[in-house]
Amino acid sequence: MKKIKNIAVLTSGGDSPGMNAAIRAVVRASVYYKIKCTGIYRGYEGLIEGDFETLDARSVKNIINRGGTFLKSARSKLFRTAEGRKQAYEQLKKNEVDALVVVGGDGTFAGASVFKKEYNFPIVGIPGTIDNDISGTDYTIGYDTALNTVIEAIDKIRDTASSHNRLFLVEVMGRNAGDIALNAGIGAGAEEILIPEQDMGINRLVESLKRSRKSGKTSSIVVVAEGDKIGKNIFELAEYIEGNFENYEVRVTVLGHIQRGGAPSCFDRVLASRLGIGAVEALLAGDQDIMIGIKNRKLVKVPFNETITGENEIDLELLKVADITSI
Amino acid sequence: MKKIKNIAVLTSGGDSPGMNAAIRAVVRASVYYKIKCTGIYRGYEGLIEGDFETLDARSVKNIINRGGTFLKSARSKLFRTAEGRKQAYEQLKKNEVDALVVVGGDGTFAGASVFKKEYNFPIVGIPGTIDNDISGTDYTIGYDTALNTVIEAIDKIRDTASSHNRLFLVEVMGRNAGDIALNAGIGAGAEEILIPEQDMGINRLVESLKRSRKSGKTSSIVVVAEGDKIGKNIFELAEYIEGNFENYEVRVTVLGHIQRGGAPSCFDRVLASRLGIGAVEALLAGDQDIMIGIKNRKLVKVPFNETITGENEIDLELLKVADITSI
Amino acid sequence: MKKIKNIAVLTSGGDSPGMNAAIRAVVRASVYYKIKCTGIYRGYEGLIEGDFETLDARSVKNIINRGGTFLKSARSKLFRTAEGRKQAYEQLKKNEVDALVVVGGDGTFAGASVFKKEYNFPIVGIPGTIDNDISGTDYTIGYDTALNTVIEAIDKIRDTASSHNRLFLVEVMGRNAGDIALNAGIGAGAEEILIPEQDMGINRLVESLKRSRKSGKTSSIVVVAEGDKIGKNIFELAEYIEGNFENYEVRVTVLGHIQRGGAPSCFDRVLASRLGIGAVEALLAGDQDIMIGIKNRKLVKVPFNETITGENEIDLELLKVADITSI
Amino acid sequence: MKKIKNIAVLTSGGDSPGMNAAIRAVVRASVYYKIKCTGIYRGYEGLIEGDFETLDARSVKNIINRGGTFLKSARSKLFRTAEGRKQAYEQLKKNEVDALVVVGGDGTFAGASVFKKEYNFPIVGIPGTIDNDISGTDYTIGYDTALNTVIEAIDKIRDTASSHNRLFLVEVMGRNAGDIALNAGIGAGAEEILIPEQDMGINRLVESLKRSRKSGKTSSIVVVAEGDKIGKNIFELAEYIEGNFENYEVRVTVLGHIQRGGAPSCFDRVLASRLGIGAVEALLAGDQDIMIGIKNRKLVKVPFNETITGENEIDLELLKVADITSI
Repeated sequence: MKKIKNIAVLTSGGDSPGMNAAIRAVVRASVYYKIKCTGIYRGYEGLIEGDFETLDARSVKNIINRGGTFLKSARSKLFRTAEGRKQAYEQLKKNEVDALVVVGGDGTFAGASVFKKEYNFPIVGIPGTIDNDISGTDYTIGYDTALNTVIEAIDKIRDTASSHNRLFLVEVMGRNAGDIALNAGIGAGAEEILIPEQDMGINRLVESLKRSRKSGKTSSIVVVAEGDKIGKNIFELAEYIEGNFENYEVRVTVLGHIQRGGAPSCFDRVLASRLGIGAVEALLAGDQDIMIGIKNRKLVKVPFNETITGENEIDLELLKVADITSI
Repeated sequence: MKKIKNIAVLTSGGDSPGMNAAIRAVVRASVYYKIKCTGIYRGYEGLIEGDFETLDARSVKNIINRGGTFLKSARSKLFRTAEGRKQAYEQLKKNEVDALVVVGGDGTFAGASVFKKEYNFPIVGIPGTIDNDISGTDYTIGYDTALNTVIEAIDKIRDTASSHNRLFLVEVMGRNAGDIALNAGIGAGAEEILIPEQDMGINRLVESLKRSRKSGKTSSIVVVAEGDKIGKNIFELAEYIEGNFENYEVRVTVLGHIQRGGAPSCFDRVLASRLGIGAVEALLAGDQDIMIGIKNRKLVKVPFNETITGENEIDLELLKVADITSI
Repeated sequence: MKKIKNIAVLTSGGDSPGMNAAIRAVVRASVYYKIKCTGIYRGYEGLIEGDFETLDARSVKNIINRGGTFLKSARSKLFRTAEGRKQAYEQLKKNEVDALVVVGGDGTFAGASVFKKEYNFPIVGIPGTIDNDISGTDYTIGYDTALNTVIEAIDKIRDTASSHNRLFLVEVMGRNAGDIALNAGIGAGAEEILIPEQDMGINRLVESLKRSRKSGKTSSIVVVAEGDKIGKNIFELAEYIEGNFENYEVRVTVLGHIQRGGAPSCFDRVLASRLGIGAVEALLAGDQDIMIGIKNRKLVKVPFNETITGENEIDLELLKVADITSI
Repeated sequence: MKKIKNIAVLTSGGDSPGMNAAIRAVVRASVYYKIKCTGIYRGYEGLIEGDFETLDARSVKNIINRGGTFLKSARSKLFRTAEGRKQAYEQLKKNEVDALVVVGGDGTFAGASVFKKEYNFPIVGIPGTIDNDISGTDYTIGYDTALNTVIEAIDKIRDTASSHNRLFLVEVMGRNAGDIALNAGIGAGAEEILIPEQDMGINRLVESLKRSRKSGKTSSIVVVAEGDKIGKNIFELAEYIEGNFENYEVRVTVLGHIQRGGAPSCFDRVLASRLGIGAVEALLAGDQDIMIGIKNRKLVKVPFNETITGENEIDLELLKVADITSI
């Protein structure tokens, strides 16, 4: 195998807080191991177009505390074509890049894996997405920050909910994974939590809200994941609930993209720093076609094809915690 | 005039951060001046129903930093009827309340003014609303906090906007007043700001966005007040803009009720403390049918009928500031 | 064994964010399992004095997001005496309490363990301390929040440090454990981190700072744990460093008690909720003399005598991460 | 008078949040009025050394939300000498700068005023300091942000204070001006506030604390300005107080430099934007030797020699507010 003298790094897919910390760690680990580091802008788009820049230790100063990704991110249709990947390979050759670190989600890894197979080019992935929906790692970069953003927003909503004896439906991110909804729902003291992995049924929801109103609760928060299984959009759901109560105002808040931004939490900064170093060390050790993840607080290496999520498993203990603490 | 021995306080209309600080100041000023203080729950609703509680200095401990209102708030249809106001008056008599402080917006003051005229009952108002849309006061309680909540949210959105070269439309509160949109728009570095007081026209908006894209800006934030004059809802507006650009993703975020909650800013806590004391002192000095406001950093007394907002005036200097700083 | 019908809960030792969430979970789990729950104020002091109160599900509403502990905490000298513990036992009998949950650190558990042995009274502990210095659990309640508080403070200090090309020494909590310093130091991008577990030597520190100044860094943050091994207090250390540089201003900030307060992070709220339920379930299952902890994301039961920390182990990987990322 | 074609901007003295927003506004106003804008690094030091850089509208993107000053700041001894100012003038000539905007405090303006007199060089000042101690302006840039930073810190300290029934002495910035202490003290619900403008006497302080302890308060916060008149440093004061109580733990927190940093509040961002534009417009209108300030929400022009603070006046109304609300 060719000796690695130049590692490139890019961020791809939806951005998440902590991506900058991961890039910083990749760059500084490269400096530490006395190899060159190249930044690629706008993910696979910039890879194909040759939007490269040499990075040194000072290039990444004062970014560990910033949300987003200074290398920018993009979703690339062209990289899904053989022609696009060919151009990408040529850019890497032209710029004398020997290995690649990609920070992103399962779509990013799927693309990386195809590319690796076609060109036998060493790639290591780092899980960066707020959704925490990647197999083989306990946590993805940005997830912990997103949880804190969500509960801070709901803490504010609770102020007004309890001042007005209202019910609030709060939509959080998560099309396929209920991790944000379930954890932030518990953390925010939500009355009910609707997640993609489970269909509680609209009737059970209404019954539960009626019970808790009878028990003396005067205001409530229901956290709803984007991909919930209730079969109505959140505004229809609000109307439906209002129709089943007398004198109970229901309000909707869609938290939206504030969940993707913000200064990363300490957890995410440390995680990103560890994973960034781990990725460089894995490449230098000859690994390729893997993601560096974290399991039980230790770094692990997971083949790309094992990172693609199948059905997300429900954490039964957390469901019970949600049930008990909202009593 | 009857000597005042018992002052009641209530919060009415939409809640705002700092209402608790205002209640606390009313209570403690009452203690200071050795009179009784009575809290009324759920605004005019609780006034009519007799939901009263005696408050002492310790009743309001540890609330200055809490959003919302522990006395709760409500909008009362019944208080708009003569019958409702009669019941309210009887409750005040029964509970030996001699004067009333109401914290709320212009709807609250309008109700108070009618009640005052009918029963010659001393009432002083305190402006509490995030919208800053009350004549006769430079600031309303909660407005400064809402501005900070909005810019913190947009700072997060900017992280993801600039990572993806996207345009974000961010809707903020303000059906009739553009104060939040204009100030938070300047504070958040928005590209354009749409307010109820001015119709910039959709074409000028699109032209401006095209110009700034040409000038090298790769991402943008447009702040839109609820009551903007563009004639489309924010989702339609997003579609329209997307239709006028190639390859420019537009996203919408509706900030919603997070703007009403949260720990009040220092500005709002101090303002609320001053107004709460001012209201008690005004009642003791024989004032009634007025709002205590703030003008040029001094407390002022404003007759209720001058607090009702007519057309909100545009601050031309701020419009220009927005124009220049978004260049 | 006697059937458990009434569980009491208290918080003891230094308070930490998330203790309220733990109490809430203990109360609601008791309600869920249809047993009575009794709150004890001011830790072992209130236990001895009989400062008890029955709690129901509504007693703990709106506290999950609050720092501190509404049951208050204290350090009790009297509980270290046989006489004190006798009184405590009598209070428990008198109030018909069958089992006890104590939230605190290793001092709390040591007291609990002695009491358990003397009176064969079922006690389960929950680790609540910001220091993360308890054996047998990966995390203690409040630690994650404290890390975020520290990095937010250092992010602010960095603003002024880099505006003035200054060196800041920032003291963080941790007399015996460097977990806060090491993790927050990495998260805040510190230049150097001084921890109790390792004596880097003052000369190596100065040399390292000189090297990084030569490498082009114009400002630096050094994070210092209270119990660092450098052999000077932080103000003497600042003077010593200043004496070894020309024209390099050194400033000291002692973060102090802000590290103990604040709204708990989502991580701490969920952790506290899980541990609170786990404690009740353990008592109902017949456990006693144990702490409920978390290992590899699963709840675990740890005998009290295994929770007392011996020498804290250094996490060698994190030390290396700190080294590499501060390059 | 010479036509102005090139305006330079620098920040000097202690940094404050919002300075970046002010620089941004100066730059973009220059672009708007079609003149050149030059940034000078490290205040008067960089002016003397010729550390200049041309800035355009894009140079100041994404900085409105950042604390500190990207142009950096410094205190310059050399600029106090005639020789230093001569070099400064030569650098301005060499770089074809026609006018200067300086952002800073009264020391900055004093230097500017001398320079103006010696070289008849147009200079306009912008008040940037967290201390709010400049005559002729209601607010200085950074003051509002510092207030919020202080109350957020004290909110955290209150969590632990009330969990442990403790008294906390919290030192805040302000050697000569009590504005931060007085406003943040009211905002944080402090028991007592010690400011430079008033010597309450240590006995009165102790008596007051005893009274409030008798009245049922179990924890207290005392806010102490750096320049308080009590005649003891804060640690001695803590000891003295502890000596006058039985069983009352006193703790000290010195907030220090966190007060200078952090993302600016909306108020400071808007203020800085207005003042920055105002400074450019004033220079273009032929003004020199003045500060642009804000009075009663309108921009005002204040001769430099009127900005130097004499004795700071106490706001008697706020002292009374503090008294009443801490009852």
